[in-house]
Amino acid sequence: MSASELIDFSKLCIHTITTKPWDVETAIEKYANAGIGGITVWRQWLEGRDIEKIGNSIREHNLSLVSLCRGGFFPAADQQGVDAAIEDNRLAIREAAALGAPMIVLVCGAVPGQPLTKSRKQITDGIAAVLPLAEELGIKLAIEPLHPVYADDRSAINTMAQANAVCDELDHDLVGIAADVYHIWWDPDLEEQIRITGEKNRLFAFHICDWMTPTSDLLNDRGLMGEGCIDIKGIRKMVEATGFAGFNEVEVFSNRWWSQDQDEFLAAIKKAYLENS
Amino acid sequence: MSASELIDFSKLCIHTITTKPWDVETAIEKYANAGIGGITVWRQWLEGRDIEKIGNSIREHNLSLVSLCRGGFFPAADQQGVDAAIEDNRLAIREAAALGAPMIVLVCGAVPGQPLTKSRKQITDGIAAVLPLAEELGIKLAIEPLHPVYADDRSAINTMAQANAVCDELDHDLVGIAADVYHIWWDPDLEEQIRITGEKNRLFAFHICDWMTPTSDLLNDRGLMGEGCIDIKGIRKMVEATGFAGFNEVEVFSNRWWSQDQDEFLAAIKKAYLENS
Repeated sequence: MSASELIDFSKLCIHTITTKPWDVETAIEKYANAGIGGITVWRQWLEGRDIEKIGNSIREHNLSLVSLCRGGFFPAADQQGVDAAIEDNRLAIREAAALGAPMIVLVCGAVPGQPLTKSRKQITDGIAAVLPLAEELGIKLAIEPLHPVYADDRSAINTMAQANAVCDELDHDLVGIAADVYHIWWDPDLEEQIRITGEKNRLFAFHICDWMTPTSDLLNDRGLMGEGCIDIKGIRKMVEATGFAGFNEVEVFSNRWWSQDQDEFLAAIKKAYLENS
Repeated sequence: MSASELIDFSKLCIHTITTKPWDVETAIEKYANAGIGGITVWRQWLEGRDIEKIGNSIREHNLSLVSLCRGGFFPAADQQGVDAAIEDNRLAIREAAALGAPMIVLVCGAVPGQPLTKSRKQITDGIAAVLPLAEELGIKLAIEPLHPVYADDRSAINTMAQANAVCDELDHDLVGIAADVYHIWWDPDLEEQIRITGEKNRLFAFHICDWMTPTSDLLNDRGLMGEGCIDIKGIRKMVEATGFAGFNEVEVFSNRWWSQDQDEFLAAIKKAYLENS
């Protein structure tokens, strides 16, 4: 079986952070005019905005609202920090509901020097604590395993197996996984873990971009699809083999691309999507 | 069981690259005068030198010669590259023998865009190809699993389990593992894989340094022990629980430390070794 052929932009979703220089109103208009199918909104793009109005605008532009990015960062060194993280995640769930987004992506968090096992426990407990509100408002929570380069301060969930373990423990229809090729391309058990994720109906999202060689910045030197070493098509094939029919979400943090003309960048995204995804 | 207490420098080894501004003659003299127990020599430090003479000098200074760094980089896009890598590793084995080093550390290699499984096969085959010479000269080959941040172009062996799998396949007394805390601190199965490595008598080396938060350079921003987030003592405890009684090798690549007075840095290494390792 091969990956489906991408011939239009109906399954292409773009994260607002990908075109960072554009505010949310500009992004909505530009994406819609370009015929993009979906949008994932980052919370910073909602600051100072009427969230319901932004949601309505997205729907009026016929863009699918794929998710709100991001919740998480549950681990903390003290109880006050743990409580604050839970409150912030409840706020994110309310924002998602107000926006009309069906899902929040969770960058789970880590505390430098704190054992990863302890952080994982705080992550599991934190998700459990916000689940009642997620249930009430019908918001899915997608755990995004992060590349181990971020194990110090961004996430103690660094493999698909670890993400699946948290999902197993919570065992809830609203808790699943966001699989991002940047984070998982090297995963020691990639194909099998994607299969399991699909089998358990918890493959909630699929993010694409590329890994640059060399990488000049640990956070903001992601590549556009085709610029790096990731076999995106191969991973998409594994994802589609599970029955996944959701969006291919382009999430590129790149100082290089952000410094360029964003209309040209959007055209480059569309080209890279068809040719290298 | 707790880790042994470090009360002197008899089990402290320093890699010549750690004090990069010093040539090999200076490093030998400085380490010996500082009462350091061992030295690991990087191949670049031998360029233009009489290798046997350097080995003799190390022994005359009562330094233990722990290993020669480094062989590896077996994967290549074509057969010519594969053959060249094997020849270079044979040269490294001969250099180790001439120096009087019992072991070579292998940074196994990867080719951007080439499937990691293919690179792993080339690594296994490459080690097998040089094993006869290693046997003849009695040189151990230590596979160093590298952090997945280097999976694009430095190593397709990114976990202790993957290193153990290659060792299992080759099943040879001279093939083992160099465990470096920088690369393995996040490993999803760390304690169990270290236990297995010891049980199979293949834990050949233990490297220490620290992981900085934030990390400003992917290669050359390692921390001195205690500057970062790694539980070095906890990992040393796992290593010693296997019966490992070798050196704690300080391998710090740091533009920051290299730019400072190296005598002061050496004093800082000794202090960090006793207090934070």
